Amino acid sequence: MRTFSSYIFLGLLLIYSCSTKQEVKNDLTVWVTPFIGSESQDSLSLPSNTFPGATTPFGMIQLSPDTQKDILNTCSGYQWKDSVIYGFSHTHLSGTGISDLYDILILPFTGTKDSIIAKLTASNMNHLRSTFSHEQESASPGYYQVLLNKQINVELTATKNVGFHRYTYQPNAIPRVLVDLDHSLSKRRKWLPFKMIDAQLKVVGPHTLEGYRIVTGWARLRKIYFTIKFSRPIADYWMFRDKRYYPSTDLICGVDNKSPLAVLSFEESKEPLEIQVGISAVSTQNARENMKYQAENKTFNEIQNKADADWERELSKITIEGSNKYKRMFYSAIYRNYLHPNDMADTNGDILLPNYTEDNLGKGNSYYSNFSLWDTYRATHPLLLLTQQERMPAIINSLIRQGEVYGYLPIWGLWGVDNYCMIGNHAVSIIVEAYIKGLRGIDWSRAYEIIKKTLTRDHANSSFFSQVEQYGFYPHDLGYEVASIHLENSYNDWCASIMAKKMGKEKDADFFLKRSMTYRNIYDKQCGFFRPRMSDGSWAEPFDPFRYDGDGDKRYYCEANAWQYLFSVQHDIKGLMQLMNGKEGMEKRLDELFTTVSPTNEINENASGFIGQYAHGNEPSHHNAYLYNYVDKPWKTQRLIRQIISKQYNDSYNGISGNDDMGQTSAWLAFSMMGFYPVNPASGEYALGSPVLDKVIIHLNNGKQFEILIHNQSETNIYVESVSYNGKKLSRPFITHEMIMNGGLLEFYMSENHPH
Amino acid sequence: MRTFSSYIFLGLLLIYSCSTKQEVKNDLTVWVTPFIGSESQDSLSLPSNTFPGATTPFGMIQLSPDTQKDILNTCSGYQWKDSVIYGFSHTHLSGTGISDLYDILILPFTGTKDSIIAKLTASNMNHLRSTFSHEQESASPGYYQVLLNKQINVELTATKNVGFHRYTYQPNAIPRVLVDLDHSLSKRRKWLPFKMIDAQLKVVGPHTLEGYRIVTGWARLRKIYFTIKFSRPIADYWMFRDKRYYPSTDLICGVDNKSPLAVLSFEESKEPLEIQVGISAVSTQNARENMKYQAENKTFNEIQNKADADWERELSKITIEGSNKYKRMFYSAIYRNYLHPNDMADTNGDILLPNYTEDNLGKGNSYYSNFSLWDTYRATHPLLLLTQQERMPAIINSLIRQGEVYGYLPIWGLWGVDNYCMIGNHAVSIIVEAYIKGLRGIDWSRAYEIIKKTLTRDHANSSFFSQVEQYGFYPHDLGYEVASIHLENSYNDWCASIMAKKMGKEKDADFFLKRSMTYRNIYDKQCGFFRPRMSDGSWAEPFDPFRYDGDGDKRYYCEANAWQYLFSVQHDIKGLMQLMNGKEGMEKRLDELFTTVSPTNEINENASGFIGQYAHGNEPSHHNAYLYNYVDKPWKTQRLIRQIISKQYNDSYNGISGNDDMGQTSAWLAFSMMGFYPVNPASGEYALGSPVLDKVIIHLNNGKQFEILIHNQSETNIYVESVSYNGKKLSRPFITHEMIMNGGLLEFYMSENHPH
Repeated sequence: MRTFSSYIFLGLLLIYSCSTKQEVKNDLTVWVTPFIGSESQDSLSLPSNTFPGATTPFGMIQLSPDTQKDILNTCSGYQWKDSVIYGFSHTHLSGTGISDLYDILILPFTGTKDSIIAKLTASNMNHLRSTFSHEQESASPGYYQVLLNKQINVELTATKNVGFHRYTYQPNAIPRVLVDLDHSLSKRRKWLPFKMIDAQLKVVGPHTLEGYRIVTGWARLRKIYFTIKFSRPIADYWMFRDKRYYPSTDLICGVDNKSPLAVLSFEESKEPLEIQVGISAVSTQNARENMKYQAENKTFNEIQNKADADWERELSKITIEGSNKYKRMFYSAIYRNYLHPNDMADTNGDILLPNYTEDNLGKGNSYYSNFSLWDTYRATHPLLLLTQQERMPAIINSLIRQGEVYGYLPIWGLWGVDNYCMIGNHAVSIIVEAYIKGLRGIDWSRAYEIIKKTLTRDHANSSFFSQVEQYGFYPHDLGYEVASIHLENSYNDWCASIMAKKMGKEKDADFFLKRSMTYRNIYDKQCGFFRPRMSDGSWAEPFDPFRYDGDGDKRYYCEANAWQYLFSVQHDIKGLMQLMNGKEGMEKRLDELFTTVSPTNEINENASGFIGQYAHGNEPSHHNAYLYNYVDKPWKTQRLIRQIISKQYNDSYNGISGNDDMGQTSAWLAFSMMGFYPVNPASGEYALGSPVLDKVIIHLNNGKQFEILIHNQSETNIYVESVSYNGKKLSRPFITHEMIMNGGLLEFYMSENHPH
Repeated sequence: MRTFSSYIFLGLLLIYSCSTKQEVKNDLTVWVTPFIGSESQDSLSLPSNTFPGATTPFGMIQLSPDTQKDILNTCSGYQWKDSVIYGFSHTHLSGTGISDLYDILILPFTGTKDSIIAKLTASNMNHLRSTFSHEQESASPGYYQVLLNKQINVELTATKNVGFHRYTYQPNAIPRVLVDLDHSLSKRRKWLPFKMIDAQLKVVGPHTLEGYRIVTGWARLRKIYFTIKFSRPIADYWMFRDKRYYPSTDLICGVDNKSPLAVLSFEESKEPLEIQVGISAVSTQNARENMKYQAENKTFNEIQNKADADWERELSKITIEGSNKYKRMFYSAIYRNYLHPNDMADTNGDILLPNYTEDNLGKGNSYYSNFSLWDTYRATHPLLLLTQQERMPAIINSLIRQGEVYGYLPIWGLWGVDNYCMIGNHAVSIIVEAYIKGLRGIDWSRAYEIIKKTLTRDHANSSFFSQVEQYGFYPHDLGYEVASIHLENSYNDWCASIMAKKMGKEKDADFFLKRSMTYRNIYDKQCGFFRPRMSDGSWAEPFDPFRYDGDGDKRYYCEANAWQYLFSVQHDIKGLMQLMNGKEGMEKRLDELFTTVSPTNEINENASGFIGQYAHGNEPSHHNAYLYNYVDKPWKTQRLIRQIISKQYNDSYNGISGNDDMGQTSAWLAFSMMGFYPVNPASGEYALGSPVLDKVIIHLNNGKQFEILIHNQSETNIYVESVSYNGKKLSRPFITHEMIMNGGLLEFYMSENHPH
């Protein structure tokens, strides 16, 4: 069959997109393929859950097609294998394993009044939807296009807070538009179901529909206010609520999942119908101001060009040489790392705090949320610290503010509030990493204060710090996933200790350093795994290093088995080595990790992308392939990196292994393609791998350049013969953040043979 | 057994209360018995659902004991027959048939740390609670006292936004205090269950605990922020979440019904422990400001005296002469009419609008919510228009603002938002009544604008205005409880028409007047009842005037049968008379109403207090006994009024027939005891009955007095021989609002015989 990339090529040639594309100057954005990751790699893998829609770097709007209703299967709303589109909603999450958002679904369609009313009031309500085909679909950064029912061409673009729709109907058809406030994650899902608490749609002028919805789901509580402006006057409108037509009203309210829908009609015209949707988390007035400031008197093409230019600016911070396939893989991976977190501040600086009160940061200031921290602290945030240094202070300050208001730093920040997904407060790692790497624009004493509170206040999903002080570990009988929690808390404890030390807080530094080493208390030398203990000191039973369940519903590990957490000690690899009886012991365990096949072939809902017990499809494994560098066998790292890149990534719709998790799985790829990876992000050290690109230039915001030349690399020349920095040969397969920030030239000399 | 009132007397004598009572000068507040209505009259009646706790007139705080957990049976949280108290929460509703609020439960207790932790972490969690007896309980306006476990004396008082607790422990016991954010209406209730979305408790200083809870229940969404100040330093605190003890933290968060609790301990002392709790619907900062402004540096006794004085001022607007029993019944009824609506504005003027955005009204301004309008438009609001004229503009303006923001006037306004309970937008009646009665301080053109929108925008629970225009009625097959909705909408249509007419909007006046007469289209002359029609014009089947169900789940009437809605045409009694073939026909139907016994004895969950088919226990009947005045048989009205007062009211805990419904059932009593009642509130006319008091003086806020002298009245002299106004004999048993507002003397001459 035709290759995926040729679809895109074909899409780009479609007259609709051409008419706009031709005006847009493209250098790097052409290499971004938003469809990558819109399908699982195989039946055993999680879907990567990316969305192809239009958005701006770190913007609040992700205007994207939803190919599923009552969304359960794909958390991004879009799945490559689907053949229908229910509409285009304005907020999405990229790569998460849980669904939410999907605000304000809009669908262009045609039909008679009677047929529409019949459909929307049928007891088994037939949702409006359209067929589409990938041949008639295209996407690029800040732009998405699809032909619906072979009749209505849809184009989407966005600013930070405003979504733009351009609908081209058949000239002879009466243009209709559905606005649906019911569309959401599943209401049937038992675990954290969606509930629409309140909502409203109101015609407020000849061109304008406004409203809001107040909902609870994965995000505890979200308020979304919006104003929708149409390029042509609304000729007629029909309001619906809970499968019932309200013939005589200009506004419709919904409560308790009795959802409001509106169908609006417009004059027939050859001209496309353009729709601007401004949103705010604070008020409709703010949504209006956001639209006025970002979109007033701007054409669709102007907005699209602006979005494209914004992406071009962000992508051009790293320029590369390599094959077209690698360029598509690399820049698409970078692109997916700039989708989140999202700036939720309104134009006037209004923000919503984690206690559901409002504050104003002053006009033009940013406030970020949507942090999948358990994932992104590993490589996404290190990547942002390399390329988004001007944005990172606002991101860090948003984390600090959220921590100060709520009481501790987020575990998983969604729409400004903690949803307690996963474990550990890895914002600690991100903040300490920024501190260690010398980021400016942050009150570090405030930062340390909330880090200390975060790591001393007992709270859910980071378990009970008081326990590790009392028992020396987190007892299984008093907790949940305690082995993973202990390992991850230990890493964050270590982060806190190096920050305290650098700030001269010796006492704190000792306290946290000591606690960061307690992970050793749960290493069972008998079986050679980290393993939970009971409060009486005995080991939790039963134990099976391949099992994901622990004992029944009480898991030992978080989304993993003992193998996958065996090396989760990024902060004390030397210590881990001692537990494993030195380098040889650790190398042996690493070899076993990458070769041992589970005797039970137990399927796990989160682990996938297996190489032995290594599961690249989930985050705990992500640094493991680089660990051979620490046992003086870098060539094994190099071989594995090449194997993972070639087997678990590509430039097609199934090009990502497992959930992309807001960029983390892609950040692993981007770093690895460049030849280095932050095994311990906060340390400021990177382990070297096997770069697949020929040349990389990182354009640093301090004005300097860090250039990487990869000599003689090919599909067969995968081993690193030597590496030099500014002409001087490196003695260890590691570089430091300082070396990068000072600029200079890193040269890899590749060969097809590895040392023995 | 000893009488209820002697309990109170005994309560008042308890040293604890005496120590404070003695300082409080009482004239009228002594006649208020807050316990009236805390139990059902009989097994067939609904509980009246009043609460005995401490509150101020129309204040946001109702600090009252909750004798039930997971509250279902009593919507006020308190039931006379109960023998345990779970604690004292700060917000309650008086007389409603559905439960909500109960924010921030606080309970004083004692016990060892281990026993407390064991209790609060037990899998079948034993809620902390205390026994109590009515002999050791007392209450008066703004004050409540009870002795818990014969050991801890509890006293409560309040300001508008601040609740005050004074706990006197045994000197040798370590004082403990439970603060519980879990306490609420039932989470198990299938219909509108409670969900705690988010909550927090945080120790912020040696004397201070702060937090919030964000919840959804009967009220769609409520945010409650609070600050709690203790008179002694917190010596120790233990935090709990979801039956789990968090040993090492100064804050505890709860999400998704995983509720936070805190137990605080204090030094032993002979001095009572005093606690101030400030609340706000907007922010903790506002809660602090409310407390600072209303309570700082004030003693418990000062606050109690202030609350008592506030009540005294409100009660003294009507002075009466009569038996002590009648004084208790009358002033308690007046008291219950001043509990709602509640001023939700913060001291700084911040308010929460129905779209969940915030606004500021300016310091010192009031903003009212909690409107049980289907009930209270009948007599509560007419009573407020007589005695609360200085407060009514803010109440009316709050209704207008809520209508403007939301799109139509509230049906049932709870915590600032419409919960769509019951039917009809009876705020229309309240606003028009105020307009007709000449209230100042309202932009009447704005008021009319939202009334018109309210009565022309199709919306839930007022059904579809477009239908009555298309069919001439609300078809049963297209609606629910349509007969009741038609009758009630017709009344509101009539209200709109007289306002439009007075404003010179002839066209609107004609439109609404015409529509207000369409109720006649559903009067079935064959059976002589109002009865729903199908959209094809045929009558809905089956029909049985005694049945409450309609056909299966689709009711014809709202909480009633055909008999109980037969006379619900307050605005066109002449027209109803014509339908019933004149005065004789209507008298005959009234006689039947009050004598016909249901052959099926069908029990109904809402109708009770039967006299024949007349059900005084629910509102649709409330004006019916006065209708004999319109058929020239006022003596039948007089006889009935006396019968209802003596049989369905008393001055004991079971002194109210059915739900008090935020004062309406009590407002009927207050008016009837004075001798008049607003059959058609907006008309400005009152029908006369049979007063049971000897003398009444209404002290009007225009400086005038309206005095009522009842000559020769007694338990046997129940008939009105004649009535004179300023010496001039009345020709009809009616007076006007104008006559009252002009001041003057109304004299009833009573006799034991009635004319034949």
